[in-house]
Amino acid sequence: MIDLALVHHPVTDKRGDLVTTSVTNIDLHDIARSCRVFGVETFWVVTPVDAMHLLTERIIRHWREGWGLNYNPGRGEALKTIRLARSLEEVIASYAEGQRPRVVATSARPQGSLSIEQIDDIARQERLLVVFGTGNGLAPAALDKCDAILPPIQGMDEYNHLSVRSAVAIYLYELAQARRAASGK
Amino acid sequence: MIDLALVHHPVTDKRGDLVTTSVTNIDLHDIARSCRVFGVETFWVVTPVDAMHLLTERIIRHWREGWGLNYNPGRGEALKTIRLARSLEEVIASYAEGQRPRVVATSARPQGSLSIEQIDDIARQERLLVVFGTGNGLAPAALDKCDAILPPIQGMDEYNHLSVRSAVAIYLYELAQARRAASGK
Repeated sequence: MIDLALVHHPVTDKRGDLVTTSVTNIDLHDIARSCRVFGVETFWVVTPVDAMHLLTERIIRHWREGWGLNYNPGRGEALKTIRLARSLEEVIASYAEGQRPRVVATSARPQGSLSIEQIDDIARQERLLVVFGTGNGLAPAALDKCDAILPPIQGMDEYNHLSVRSAVAIYLYELAQARRAASGK
Repeated sequence: MIDLALVHHPVTDKRGDLVTTSVTNIDLHDIARSCRVFGVETFWVVTPVDAMHLLTERIIRHWREGWGLNYNPGRGEALKTIRLARSLEEVIASYAEGQRPRVVATSARPQGSLSIEQIDDIARQERLLVVFGTGNGLAPAALDKCDAILPPIQGMDEYNHLSVRSAVAIYLYELAQARRAASGK
């Protein structure tokens, strides 16, 4: 079982300052679609801002009940993976005793404490919550809540400024490949 | 050498009708960033619409010369991979004799004529132009210009509605992995 959390606070901006980013429509759509394709059960959208909860709920409603359901039923199918939370702590606390996933952060900086093979191994065996930061990445206060940090996606040189949407797609693809290999399919 | 083409015409909409899609700011940014990370030399933005050429040029200028250069130099670094063309034919004809890449289409439908391993092999040996359709995918008239069609990205079931931004990220990551493996790095 894999869940995903997209964190809008606490994250840093490009100067390293602590900020809260906005929820964006394109993140919800792209990441929900990747989650649905690669078998993620719950896509947690994490923000403490009330207005962003209302916005997210309205977007989901549009595609699950409103005009969008007729226009493109596949979107509602993806967006129904979304759940809202106010903090990463709230996400982690929402799991019942004995169901708590291993919480792994992702980062574009090489601070990984596990190899991708080790994570693949975890993905095959346990419940996993993969945490992504918006802005310039997860702040230390969020990283501290995680059990491990995945190594960054390796590009051809030092330039590694993938969008969070692209990074999610690649990490989920990689994890799905590992699970497929393990199950012999 | 890998180049990429993002085609806005001829593509189909969800009814299968032939349409021309709009160039979107988010496609330019996300795909240019993935191209820069994974070593794509040229990101061809293909549209016959004059206004879309002007829009694309203006966006690039903003991040390469204007206010954006100071604000986030990494964006200009990615966006400089972009070149504009009016058609896939024009892209293909732009390569000098003997430099013509193998042209491979991508598709979410299982119409692939090559396995990913065979494509990996091609990526290691030859010049490659990887072609992505916007909207609901490349129309037959565009597919006919390609030498081969890559198999779709495999999800967990029949739902495979990734955004083109996510699909680009995964295909480029996969090709980069193959090139890295081949070069022994």
